Amino acid sequence: MSTPTKIVLDCDPGHDDAVALLLAHADPRIDLLAVTTIGGNQTLEKVTRNTLGILTLIGCTDVPVAAGCTRPLVREMRVAADIHGESGLDGVDLPEPTITLDPRHAVDVIIETVMAHGPGEVTLVPTGPLTNIALAARREPAIIERVREVVLMGGGVHVGNATPVAEFNILVDPEAADIVFGAGWPVVMVGLDVTHEALATPQVAARVAQIDSVAGRFVGQLIEAFGENYRQVQGFDAPPVHDPCALAYVIDNSIVGTRRAPLTVELRGEHTTGMTVADLRGPEPADCPTSVGVSLDVDKFWDLVVGALEELAPGAQPGASPG
Amino acid sequence: MSTPTKIVLDCDPGHDDAVALLLAHADPRIDLLAVTTIGGNQTLEKVTRNTLGILTLIGCTDVPVAAGCTRPLVREMRVAADIHGESGLDGVDLPEPTITLDPRHAVDVIIETVMAHGPGEVTLVPTGPLTNIALAARREPAIIERVREVVLMGGGVHVGNATPVAEFNILVDPEAADIVFGAGWPVVMVGLDVTHEALATPQVAARVAQIDSVAGRFVGQLIEAFGENYRQVQGFDAPPVHDPCALAYVIDNSIVGTRRAPLTVELRGEHTTGMTVADLRGPEPADCPTSVGVSLDVDKFWDLVVGALEELAPGAQPGASPG
Amino acid sequence: MSTPTKIVLDCDPGHDDAVALLLAHADPRIDLLAVTTIGGNQTLEKVTRNTLGILTLIGCTDVPVAAGCTRPLVREMRVAADIHGESGLDGVDLPEPTITLDPRHAVDVIIETVMAHGPGEVTLVPTGPLTNIALAARREPAIIERVREVVLMGGGVHVGNATPVAEFNILVDPEAADIVFGAGWPVVMVGLDVTHEALATPQVAARVAQIDSVAGRFVGQLIEAFGENYRQVQGFDAPPVHDPCALAYVIDNSIVGTRRAPLTVELRGEHTTGMTVADLRGPEPADCPTSVGVSLDVDKFWDLVVGALEELAPGAQPGASPG
Amino acid sequence: MSTPTKIVLDCDPGHDDAVALLLAHADPRIDLLAVTTIGGNQTLEKVTRNTLGILTLIGCTDVPVAAGCTRPLVREMRVAADIHGESGLDGVDLPEPTITLDPRHAVDVIIETVMAHGPGEVTLVPTGPLTNIALAARREPAIIERVREVVLMGGGVHVGNATPVAEFNILVDPEAADIVFGAGWPVVMVGLDVTHEALATPQVAARVAQIDSVAGRFVGQLIEAFGENYRQVQGFDAPPVHDPCALAYVIDNSIVGTRRAPLTVELRGEHTTGMTVADLRGPEPADCPTSVGVSLDVDKFWDLVVGALEELAPGAQPGASPG
Repeated sequence: MSTPTKIVLDCDPGHDDAVALLLAHADPRIDLLAVTTIGGNQTLEKVTRNTLGILTLIGCTDVPVAAGCTRPLVREMRVAADIHGESGLDGVDLPEPTITLDPRHAVDVIIETVMAHGPGEVTLVPTGPLTNIALAARREPAIIERVREVVLMGGGVHVGNATPVAEFNILVDPEAADIVFGAGWPVVMVGLDVTHEALATPQVAARVAQIDSVAGRFVGQLIEAFGENYRQVQGFDAPPVHDPCALAYVIDNSIVGTRRAPLTVELRGEHTTGMTVADLRGPEPADCPTSVGVSLDVDKFWDLVVGALEELAPGAQPGASPG
Repeated sequence: MSTPTKIVLDCDPGHDDAVALLLAHADPRIDLLAVTTIGGNQTLEKVTRNTLGILTLIGCTDVPVAAGCTRPLVREMRVAADIHGESGLDGVDLPEPTITLDPRHAVDVIIETVMAHGPGEVTLVPTGPLTNIALAARREPAIIERVREVVLMGGGVHVGNATPVAEFNILVDPEAADIVFGAGWPVVMVGLDVTHEALATPQVAARVAQIDSVAGRFVGQLIEAFGENYRQVQGFDAPPVHDPCALAYVIDNSIVGTRRAPLTVELRGEHTTGMTVADLRGPEPADCPTSVGVSLDVDKFWDLVVGALEELAPGAQPGASPG
Repeated sequence: MSTPTKIVLDCDPGHDDAVALLLAHADPRIDLLAVTTIGGNQTLEKVTRNTLGILTLIGCTDVPVAAGCTRPLVREMRVAADIHGESGLDGVDLPEPTITLDPRHAVDVIIETVMAHGPGEVTLVPTGPLTNIALAARREPAIIERVREVVLMGGGVHVGNATPVAEFNILVDPEAADIVFGAGWPVVMVGLDVTHEALATPQVAARVAQIDSVAGRFVGQLIEAFGENYRQVQGFDAPPVHDPCALAYVIDNSIVGTRRAPLTVELRGEHTTGMTVADLRGPEPADCPTSVGVSLDVDKFWDLVVGALEELAPGAQPGASPG
Repeated sequence: MSTPTKIVLDCDPGHDDAVALLLAHADPRIDLLAVTTIGGNQTLEKVTRNTLGILTLIGCTDVPVAAGCTRPLVREMRVAADIHGESGLDGVDLPEPTITLDPRHAVDVIIETVMAHGPGEVTLVPTGPLTNIALAARREPAIIERVREVVLMGGGVHVGNATPVAEFNILVDPEAADIVFGAGWPVVMVGLDVTHEALATPQVAARVAQIDSVAGRFVGQLIEAFGENYRQVQGFDAPPVHDPCALAYVIDNSIVGTRRAPLTVELRGEHTTGMTVADLRGPEPADCPTSVGVSLDVDKFWDLVVGALEELAPGAQPGASPG
């Protein structure tokens, strides 16, 4: 087995972020260097508390966790309380955290982690608004050449959720997204075109229900709570579990179909602000550093998630599968 | 057979407009009340000359033809010489027109034609920029309630051609499109999602080649010239024949699949100006007056076009097929 | 005395429009060819009724009056009821009109009047939103070369009223203003920089009060009602009487100081939409067709207005002063 | 004499920045805590080298100097080589720096300096694009309450230079300006309305020429070189010396007339992007934290600058004049 991919996971848990954290912790092909948090699904304070609680619950206690920006660069703050509730993780029981927060700012942790490793070693995986990543790139431009790639959950080519054509993470801080998309490093956008295929159907819920462990019951609760909200707010029969799709791509890029395409963010439209604009007319420029996800291997994806849960079951030793 | 649908065709020929004119003339389910012209694929002067030439060639000599606006409402003029050539109909031989232009302005012809018929009788079918239609709606708001519906070729939900997300007709005059989409009358947008299915493949060309008539040879020339340009400029193997798709919907709405959706035009975006923004998240408001085309019954469509050409063959009497 | 200047006055009365109408009628240096109306200070229906009433009151019964557009080109309608009241002329008594409305649309009247006169003969004087003028220019581009100049009340270089940087008439229909400013004909913008000098102070009111005539009492009422609204809404001690300033420039251009400057309208700003952007950095291009008003000769201005009122006093014969 | 005002000067020298640095160093009413640099008039590398050279020349060797951002947050980089030349200080001889650069990033120096002092102690004085200040506010929001005020050179209410309505510093990074203006801390914008009064006339140059010192000759060179560029590029007879005006306000706020007004930056306009939009319609909200400079006491201003130069003459001891 090849060396695990070193990542920094920048997240705003959030129900689906919780599954992403779990995957990042449990899958042996990931080496989780740090977790950073960002205001998004809920306020920075709440998502940071949720992050510490989730990591405590899944037994991931040796990874630095640092809090980042409280608000977007330019726009006013908005949160997704309709989907994730007042706590950001409504409907789920979390333990008191036994982990303490790293005193550094998330932006510094991102910069220091990238610069402490060699060129092309660290992958950034943001699953919330891109404010921390953007600030890091402007504060220390040297990370742009040093990062392996940025694999993010956000945006959508043909699908929006927060508006007809914009996805929530990008809409919250479109200027940050513009900075990240245009920085020059490789960017893989795993957006709604992909994640709306990652539905936690009753069949998926049934597989999860068979995993008799703390993590299994936790994900069962997540799916139930999240599903109810998506049903009511966006009319989904089964909830899309967005954030782990970005992790899935990092773990095994055959799970997410992508294509290279020039990618920008609309900052000024009346009806389109926050839209991720991919030029699919082709052919793309030879040096195009941006790609967009276009499809999901649904079976492989759920096998991955369920497999990670099984790793975490009693007796299993996360990350210790033989290489 | 039911009463033919009364239409005003507002066009900018253009190769595909020519096929639309032919269809409007030849199909017995259409009653062509007037043809109006608009600067778009080429200048007003050229598209008007082309219109008179096409109508002369296909023997449509008793319909008023009026010239309209020379330029968009707010934006600078642009033409599609890369696709349609210097004449707007490069590669095609047209006769000297034997028809004279109506002295009235297209906007007045549209208004007078609509007001001279009863409520719900006249359908407007624009296949170029929407300047004439928009001016008519602002100059005489009474037409808005009186028109049956506006079935237009333009825009696209998931596809652009002039930019990554904007179609040419809408991009040329987005303010006019905004006026038309928001007026309150029923609008059916037959855009690139539909028309990129209407490809004049070699099989289609072969069917056309078997029609031994002036009109048949004319359409054969059109397809050849148009195809060459689309190959070079947009990389198509076979050219999309956009404009007749709107006519096809008017003739037989089972040919174009549509769905109701709120529809606006982006006027201010940096990357998205001219994009037609449909809200497909559903459910749409009960009184939503706008629909977008989402699919094409390709076989039915080409049967319709070839059938119209056969109507026009020597011996055939356009519009006189038994009901 | 030189030939009177032929004008079409396009207005939305409105208290200050009433004074402009009076000036246009009474001053012998103006030949009022037609009056057209536009929705603005109030709805088209109300401002048209007000126009007919004002003209009846001041005895101007032989000029065609035509109603125009009910709403702006692209934006939603808005009226200035806070300043002009529910009727558009609150606080003023108007007689029942004895004039009938011209059946033609204002846009047609503008076009036909301009084209019926020689090149450089007709000046357009809009004192409301520019929708009618813009539609006329797009509907019949030949008027652009034929018009002498467009002298409009609207905009402001350093002053806004409806927003920090936008004036009401322009904000109501900025796309129309963009069309008018960019058409190529000479444009003189008499904006708030000028009209905020035209204050109906107590001294002015006292001069008007001494004119013992129907028109004198009417203007006295106007000033009182208008003044009260401006005090409450915009904090003015004495109300600015905007619209006659444009007329004053046409009558005697030494009354309004102007300078040539490139002039555009902001259509897309978040904080600046409707702002008239003049480039005062100089030097202006040699062929710059646009000018902006920068100062007012206040004494001359009020002498002009009071003089017109005296023309209209009993025994006086408007427009009949020896040439 | 009261306690000197503690400041961090964030600059991009630049001819006029050099005079600001000199004033900050020499005037005893200023306690210069740190100097930070920002790409603007020239690239970060060049303005940082210039800063070290200027400070060496004027004998200011004990203040930390830290380099900041190389480029704006969202927009592409642009420099003012037309005004300041290839070096950013063309026409001026600088010594080799004897000072070493602080290894910290400017953003960290700003944050650490503010947080190391008490609430209300530190004033930020940016005279270039606002990228560093904006990043500091987003990276550590606690500085917003802690800073005394932000006194910046930039913008303009009725005057633009880079565009008809935008000033260079703001246009370079309007998003950063938006962050700074909207943060909630007190902001005093000393813009072109003020600085275009601060002209280095021949009389001023003559006063400077009489100061027989290194600093005097340096400023003499600055004025000459800067004056020539302003003459050629913007048509000024004598060059406006912008940046020291902000310092002058900090030293003695009677030198710059200000008024409180809501203040925003236009980010999306077609003609107005980068414009600082002040609402002067009044009355301003009671808690309005933003003010704009509206006038300059020209004599006091030049007395201040010349006085500072005299402080720096041989034998004089900067900052040691009796209170």
